[in-house]
Amino acid sequence: MSRRAVILVSGGMDSAVTLALAREQGFACHALSVAYGQRHAAELAAAERVAARFGAEHKCVEVDLRSIGGSALTADIAVPEAEGSGIPVTYVPARNTIMLAIALGWAEVLGAQDIFCGVNAVDYSGYPDCRPEFVAAFERLANLATKAGVEGHALRIHAPLIRLSKAAIVREGVRLGAQGFADAGIADPTRYA
Amino acid sequence: MSRRAVILVSGGMDSAVTLALAREQGFACHALSVAYGQRHAAELAAAERVAARFGAEHKCVEVDLRSIGGSALTADIAVPEAEGSGIPVTYVPARNTIMLAIALGWAEVLGAQDIFCGVNAVDYSGYPDCRPEFVAAFERLANLATKAGVEGHALRIHAPLIRLSKAAIVREGVRLGAQGFADAGIADPTRYA
Repeated sequence: MSRRAVILVSGGMDSAVTLALAREQGFACHALSVAYGQRHAAELAAAERVAARFGAEHKCVEVDLRSIGGSALTADIAVPEAEGSGIPVTYVPARNTIMLAIALGWAEVLGAQDIFCGVNAVDYSGYPDCRPEFVAAFERLANLATKAGVEGHALRIHAPLIRLSKAAIVREGVRLGAQGFADAGIADPTRYA
Repeated sequence: MSRRAVILVSGGMDSAVTLALAREQGFACHALSVAYGQRHAAELAAAERVAARFGAEHKCVEVDLRSIGGSALTADIAVPEAEGSGIPVTYVPARNTIMLAIALGWAEVLGAQDIFCGVNAVDYSGYPDCRPEFVAAFERLANLATKAGVEGHALRIHAPLIRLSKAAIVREGVRLGAQGFADAGIADPTRYA
């Protein structure tokens, strides 16, 4: 039986490529979308298509971050046409931490020891939670937070795109047949994985 | 102006005492309840009372973990009368990770550098995410995940009850006037903070 993995899938290209890579590695893939109250909920239909394309079970967990506000994606803050330097206004506070935490919960239920996310440090240099050191710290936390950690089964957080350029991600998408299922029209600020 | 803190408040005694301790330390307190699809949603009314008692703003964020299942608190698994050894069936996968992640998001929006939670390693020895090393790992993650980490403002995760006995927590509750507002009838397995 294949080992199970949970893959965060947004409906965008990065997470579609990530799912395809997980499947290529032989994992039985369980795709997770987190609906965090974002205005661009149409992403979820694309996430469904991506999961179906790669034979993955798909679940969506809702977490309503609108009440805590703080982002152009969840609150009534205008999305700017051009971003300045620093952390973008489309940054959702603690978003990747929250999504990985929910993925961790599902992984524990499934008995999966592998979680994949499509974070990318190159295009997202302004987002603190897209950096390799963030992913490493979450992996360490995951192994302390769960039964797996207590029982000595190491959990692993995979971020296979983290150091790839956008061009390299597109090439992988073509190679793996992930294009045409992902929603290429989803604007960068709404891609979360 | 007082420094702001986010306090996870469930409605039970432990988190009421934790909120009272945060207030005693002079923090402007922002109480957060996370409704994770639990069957014991009556806790939230107690959380409201606790927050009002200590003059804290109160918000509730909903995250529906029922779709991922895996716990007697969120899925259709019977809660046993007596627990055996090991990890209880009432353990919600990654619950404290998820709740702290949401608290981290709100702290970032508020500009708060302090998060309090009422986890207790003595009564909850079967829960991996109630151990001091879990709290320390989350603090490290928090400082990598957020603007605060990027900008060098250290975030701190406070777990003031983590090594207290149940008797010591009750004594603190009496001293701080937290009893009578918390719902003492909330069964232990549903206390999350």
